[in-house]
Amino acid sequence: MPQDPAPPLLRDTSPARPAAPAAAPGGPSGAGAFDWLDAAGAARRDAGLVRTLRPRPADSPLLDLAGNDYLGLARHPEVTRGAADAAHHWGAGATGSRLVTGSTELHARLEAELAEFCGFEAALVLSSGYAANLAAVTALTAPGALIVSDAGNHASLIDGCRLSRARTEVAPHADPEAVRAALTGHDGRALVVTDAVFSVDGDAAPLPALAEVCRTRGAGLLIDDAHGLGVLGEGGRGAPWAAGLAGDGDVVTTVTLSKSLGSQGGVVLGPARVVEHLVNTARSFIFDTGLAPAAAGGALAALRLLRREPRRATRAVAVAQGLYERLTAAGLTAVRPDAAVISVRAPSPEAALRWAADCRTAGLAVGCFRPPSVPDGISRLRLTARADLTDDQLDAAVRTIVATAPGD
Amino acid sequence: MPQDPAPPLLRDTSPARPAAPAAAPGGPSGAGAFDWLDAAGAARRDAGLVRTLRPRPADSPLLDLAGNDYLGLARHPEVTRGAADAAHHWGAGATGSRLVTGSTELHARLEAELAEFCGFEAALVLSSGYAANLAAVTALTAPGALIVSDAGNHASLIDGCRLSRARTEVAPHADPEAVRAALTGHDGRALVVTDAVFSVDGDAAPLPALAEVCRTRGAGLLIDDAHGLGVLGEGGRGAPWAAGLAGDGDVVTTVTLSKSLGSQGGVVLGPARVVEHLVNTARSFIFDTGLAPAAAGGALAALRLLRREPRRATRAVAVAQGLYERLTAAGLTAVRPDAAVISVRAPSPEAALRWAADCRTAGLAVGCFRPPSVPDGISRLRLTARADLTDDQLDAAVRTIVATAPGD
Repeated sequence: MPQDPAPPLLRDTSPARPAAPAAAPGGPSGAGAFDWLDAAGAARRDAGLVRTLRPRPADSPLLDLAGNDYLGLARHPEVTRGAADAAHHWGAGATGSRLVTGSTELHARLEAELAEFCGFEAALVLSSGYAANLAAVTALTAPGALIVSDAGNHASLIDGCRLSRARTEVAPHADPEAVRAALTGHDGRALVVTDAVFSVDGDAAPLPALAEVCRTRGAGLLIDDAHGLGVLGEGGRGAPWAAGLAGDGDVVTTVTLSKSLGSQGGVVLGPARVVEHLVNTARSFIFDTGLAPAAAGGALAALRLLRREPRRATRAVAVAQGLYERLTAAGLTAVRPDAAVISVRAPSPEAALRWAADCRTAGLAVGCFRPPSVPDGISRLRLTARADLTDDQLDAAVRTIVATAPGD
Repeated sequence: MPQDPAPPLLRDTSPARPAAPAAAPGGPSGAGAFDWLDAAGAARRDAGLVRTLRPRPADSPLLDLAGNDYLGLARHPEVTRGAADAAHHWGAGATGSRLVTGSTELHARLEAELAEFCGFEAALVLSSGYAANLAAVTALTAPGALIVSDAGNHASLIDGCRLSRARTEVAPHADPEAVRAALTGHDGRALVVTDAVFSVDGDAAPLPALAEVCRTRGAGLLIDDAHGLGVLGEGGRGAPWAAGLAGDGDVVTTVTLSKSLGSQGGVVLGPARVVEHLVNTARSFIFDTGLAPAAAGGALAALRLLRREPRRATRAVAVAQGLYERLTAAGLTAVRPDAAVISVRAPSPEAALRWAADCRTAGLAVGCFRPPSVPDGISRLRLTARADLTDDQLDAAVRTIVATAPGD
């Protein structure tokens, strides 16, 4: 598990240990309670799995095929103006929980327009997609309930399952019959949980078949559409819309405002009674400060822009498919994209890291997914298509990725 | 538990149940998987515990003693300009995980200045204080570790304990000897977890005594200083600074950017090796989009303003103490504030709700904390002091609270 990659406990914690003196502020840390972190860090270095932050400048010269800004809206002037205007008008922060002072009319407007766009009765905005998934999974289950969770689901859904203290059965990836089998014989509340587009490989879940299984078994269906909103469905209305499930009384969807909508935040979409239940019981909603007005304002501007320019959605998918076809034609192994994420296989974590670094040297930013952030242990480059990429940029990206590919 | 206030399962979930037809998009939801929510909602209504969102306009005429904007910075023109400028310059969103494209030089600058201000070696910015607490608790423990957690701790710390799968002992509130007893005999990693200022009652944790217990037992100390930053310590450097614990190698602190700094986000402060460990292992950091640039920019502007105007911190505390003295002199029962939060006791959830509503009618917004968001089941008004409240405003607030107080 990513939470505990460290070797067994190494340090002496006997009560007789003398007190460690406090280090000077800002100075090096002395011997003490966190000494075990040094061994954990050394183990990461030995395994070639160290991650470091690489802060980027505002005017990065890199061509970005790593971010999740699928529609190219994060720096669109209408969207940044929406964010900036909201900060000036509403303040830099929401000042409290949505239940106290943190709900503004801006949040309510965003919720109404998102629900209408995606075809759901109601919406609830939270501070992140991670928080939205914790809220939906925990509020819609309870100890004693059964959760059936796809093996490829995002970490935030998995953490939601852990927090819920429901019984969780992990179903093989994208396998409705396995979900049916897991539900069979369970007597009580059940919730089937799946990404709509899986974040690592970019493949889509079999939503219609999953919904049919849920219907016949009386289970709810929770769909995380973080990578489908703005890309799939008519004009980017998302994967549930594309599958005919938007507004279904047994379906709840989560989306993020930080990908296609170029901002920050998470949203739960579903029947009004589900949203009312979350407002009253979801801890990651109740005990969190409301989303900053600038994030709500940026997302709202992006949503309105998408409604006006629905072709951005189809362009993102076309770019992804074009990338896939050209990379596989050049001999690389990739997963056929169902949305805007393309996963290209690398032979090892080290090779993936080197490949990504070589791309970067050549001016191209790509994602590099390695254990422990991938559920199957396979390392890959993760490329993201953007609606605003030009043909010249795509040519350059393909050339670089192919030229820097590891040998056999 | 707030997660499961519903009565036992009520609906028939036998496999023979016929499939429910999908409701029309936006239409009323039919019978189905979430029918149990209606009973849960009815139970809330019967108990008088229904929470509803009340979106506020930008120009609310209410005097706000409910938000957590302790220094009055959320709408300060320097802070909103910092947020707006960051949106224009960096984009409306961070576009990805901090490990992929979501780290900007703005994030790094904020981290460096916050660490220096609070006296810690390193800092890590996350999208919320909730996420920061999940990250710190889970990354610094593991199954097999022991967590000793104060009974009054914030929900996000409690959820971190649940996610960690460590053994958690809940210690009586603010009781270092109970913490010592809980640690005695444990052989392995241990982490003591406490709010610095408790969010409901506004009282402070006995940090020096807790640190001494941790030192003698080899345990780490995790302090959530969400309500101390900007208010306590020299110039608002926070409760760990005030207790002489800033920069201690065995101490990790979390703060939020959404209270005194008027923005959004959470931060973990501690030794560099702790931050490096979080970057590599904390799921609520790795699997979340980076904080939106506007939130980072707003918080950075607020931090710089606080450095220039350190008296805002002392003013917030003085306002809280003045409120406490005048309310108790008028016969109300309140907890003596150690920071900027004042808790005033109400005789029942219904009385608290009516009291808060009467205040609102009279033009004053106050917090109303009732079960299940309070750990002890006691309902209260929660008032927050702000550095920018005028004496006239304070006079009006006291008059309103006293005039609307429930009778005996």
